[in-house]
Amino acid sequence: MFINTDILIIGAGPAGIVTATTARKYYSEKKILIVKNVERGVIPCGIPYMFYSLKNPEENELKITPLEKKNIQVIIDEVVNIDRIQKIAYTKNGDMINYEKLIMATGSLPQSLPIPGIEKEGVYLIYKDMEYLRKVVEKVKNSKNVLIIGGGFIGCEVADEISKIEGVNVYLVEVLPNLLANSFDPEFSKIVEEKLVSEGVKVLTNTKVVEIIGKEKVEEVLLSDGRKIKVDVVILGIGSVPNTELAQKIGLEIGKRKGIRVDEYMRTSDPNIFAVGDCAEKRDFFTRKPVQVMLASTATAESRICGANIYKLKVIRENKGTIAIYSTFINGVVLGSAGLTEKTANLEGFEIITGIAEAPDKHPKTLPSANKIKVKLIFSKHSGIILGGQVAGGMSCGELINLIGVAIQKRMSFTELETLQMATHPYLTPAPTMYPVVLAAQDAANKI
Amino acid sequence: MFINTDILIIGAGPAGIVTATTARKYYSEKKILIVKNVERGVIPCGIPYMFYSLKNPEENELKITPLEKKNIQVIIDEVVNIDRIQKIAYTKNGDMINYEKLIMATGSLPQSLPIPGIEKEGVYLIYKDMEYLRKVVEKVKNSKNVLIIGGGFIGCEVADEISKIEGVNVYLVEVLPNLLANSFDPEFSKIVEEKLVSEGVKVLTNTKVVEIIGKEKVEEVLLSDGRKIKVDVVILGIGSVPNTELAQKIGLEIGKRKGIRVDEYMRTSDPNIFAVGDCAEKRDFFTRKPVQVMLASTATAESRICGANIYKLKVIRENKGTIAIYSTFINGVVLGSAGLTEKTANLEGFEIITGIAEAPDKHPKTLPSANKIKVKLIFSKHSGIILGGQVAGGMSCGELINLIGVAIQKRMSFTELETLQMATHPYLTPAPTMYPVVLAAQDAANKI
Repeated sequence: MFINTDILIIGAGPAGIVTATTARKYYSEKKILIVKNVERGVIPCGIPYMFYSLKNPEENELKITPLEKKNIQVIIDEVVNIDRIQKIAYTKNGDMINYEKLIMATGSLPQSLPIPGIEKEGVYLIYKDMEYLRKVVEKVKNSKNVLIIGGGFIGCEVADEISKIEGVNVYLVEVLPNLLANSFDPEFSKIVEEKLVSEGVKVLTNTKVVEIIGKEKVEEVLLSDGRKIKVDVVILGIGSVPNTELAQKIGLEIGKRKGIRVDEYMRTSDPNIFAVGDCAEKRDFFTRKPVQVMLASTATAESRICGANIYKLKVIRENKGTIAIYSTFINGVVLGSAGLTEKTANLEGFEIITGIAEAPDKHPKTLPSANKIKVKLIFSKHSGIILGGQVAGGMSCGELINLIGVAIQKRMSFTELETLQMATHPYLTPAPTMYPVVLAAQDAANKI
Repeated sequence: MFINTDILIIGAGPAGIVTATTARKYYSEKKILIVKNVERGVIPCGIPYMFYSLKNPEENELKITPLEKKNIQVIIDEVVNIDRIQKIAYTKNGDMINYEKLIMATGSLPQSLPIPGIEKEGVYLIYKDMEYLRKVVEKVKNSKNVLIIGGGFIGCEVADEISKIEGVNVYLVEVLPNLLANSFDPEFSKIVEEKLVSEGVKVLTNTKVVEIIGKEKVEEVLLSDGRKIKVDVVILGIGSVPNTELAQKIGLEIGKRKGIRVDEYMRTSDPNIFAVGDCAEKRDFFTRKPVQVMLASTATAESRICGANIYKLKVIRENKGTIAIYSTFINGVVLGSAGLTEKTANLEGFEIITGIAEAPDKHPKTLPSANKIKVKLIFSKHSGIILGGQVAGGMSCGELINLIGVAIQKRMSFTELETLQMATHPYLTPAPTMYPVVLAAQDAANKI
């Protein structure tokens, strides 16, 4: 079959969807078609919650009905080749799709681990595919011992969730000394570790899994310290790599960190092809160096830039790279990080000062369900500009880290932050006298 | 007695306290003394919650112990006169306090209403005095019918709280067509009104109380529509006026809106006297016109500028006036406002466009206790700069309005906001595809 479209988007994750909905707003007359290769996708950040919090894993399906309402067509198929001269995409089902503009939103693929036994039954990766994940959830619920490799966000969140299933014992193995080490300084990582340990997760840091043992099915894992642990299920959460198979096949330029090379406005080396999200190369907000950050926040920001700029550059890019902003929720504590940590700032060679503050998140703190908030901010010592922030506390920290994210994106100084005007309310925030973002900025300013 | 200090602060509300703690950080060698005229003060924004949510109203005391730990002396007395030449303050108890720098943090006084019967027993104002308020709470708890005059923040929050006391019937009277009309456009005011009505509060908008009837004690009120309502208690929440009696007595310049005239760094017409908080004149962030805004957020921002700048101007003021940022929590719904509303922007003559978006505050929205968030943003049409925002939704809106506040203070454009990077998490925020601040900015951008 021969299909005609104006805008062809490959992939229906958050990047593909947001590119489509943004393009629909800015180019109302254009035909938009999305090709997705899995029958039913999932909300990426909801994956851990399919194990316990959601009554039914199906609730985490990334539905495409809203797209059809917006006159965005979606077909399930796979683009296997592209004729860039003729502007025709060839699909697995044998269709040909003629396009004016093409967007690669092919995402990333979970990384495997090159150790003996990794191919055994009972070892799972986190694919963004409902059918696959439903089976993993089923297996986990009927297991006794689950071991998770990788103490990043996925690993910690999955460990937290699975530990709530009655009768399932959870091990979390991390090669580095701390959990979530890419996004948090050790004092925040320790909070996560304590929370996981307190709900029964066996956290093994500074540890590698060196072999997976069993006949066909996993039965034990061998650790770098020589110990063997009996397990029924192993889940790998050690990160992902950009999915650029098709991009490479058609000769698009690939960057150093294996993402598709893009310009400021998400255009690839072919002026009619864009790339957004996990498959596209990212740059760091502070150094402009290529980095490998795979976050929905970055993907959707890129997609909104791309979607508006497909035919004409309408939206001038103001944010100059990823600030790697992230939040998580582990056994009742919320953690958020944005920009550089103290550790990464030091590694990059920034001259910094840090400020720290703690305050109850309600006032008076005797109000029901008050939590303590801890805030750490990192500033350029000489310039006074904020480089990063970390928070830990109650539910309000989910948006508090986004406030810090805005401050970073607008390059606020400690002076601006220490004299910030913010709304405070007994039930909603710390007291105006103790607002921790302000006090952390003041703490840093005082060290000058 | 003759007392010597370096820094003398009159008043121990949030403005006085934050000035003291900031001064302590920047001028560690200086003596700091606070004179307060009530034995036990209260946390201003916690006052409504003394009626029901706090088990004991005493929990809302604004404690001074943390000050003493920071080597800030506090005495209970009242400054009745000041010799500005000799730099001596005279107190009611007959003491003389010698100072280098003086800070007026005398706050505001609740406004009364010039109607017949206002002096009767059972009519209460909201004084920031623990002893007084304890009595009011006691009276309310033993009453059958309470009528509140004024549908601003205090009125709405107090009505919400008292309605939860079993057996107490609540009336809320507002002269304007909408509640919270200074901070919200009608569609948000309606949400508050619905919430109050649904918990049994009788909301009477477009209505005045014209007389308070009774022998010595209030028995009935007469409304502007001729109706009479039986009541035991009347609470006035119609606003406050700057407390400038002492400032006027000693000849400090007073502004048009009755606040003490101050410069950019909170210095009064006397270079050795500063004024901060409700007693000091405020300017609007957008027009620089004097305005009467009495909020802890503004007061504490001023106090941090003042405290750092008492001896040397260290902190250059970046925010050029009050953005009137506020949040509240009414019968389960959080509302926040910052900057100009659509109504006030139109009244001032700004050419504007608005953007609106709604999204569930968790994703998938089937997660427990998900709420809908509604966001409205107001932009300068030509400049694209954000002028204001309003939010309504769950608990996360308490910090979400602060994120919008940062955007306003940094004069962000809709382009910057529509391509914002923010952290999203199933339990903590809307989905990255639907983050309502971003979608509201996009909605506005699309109208250009």
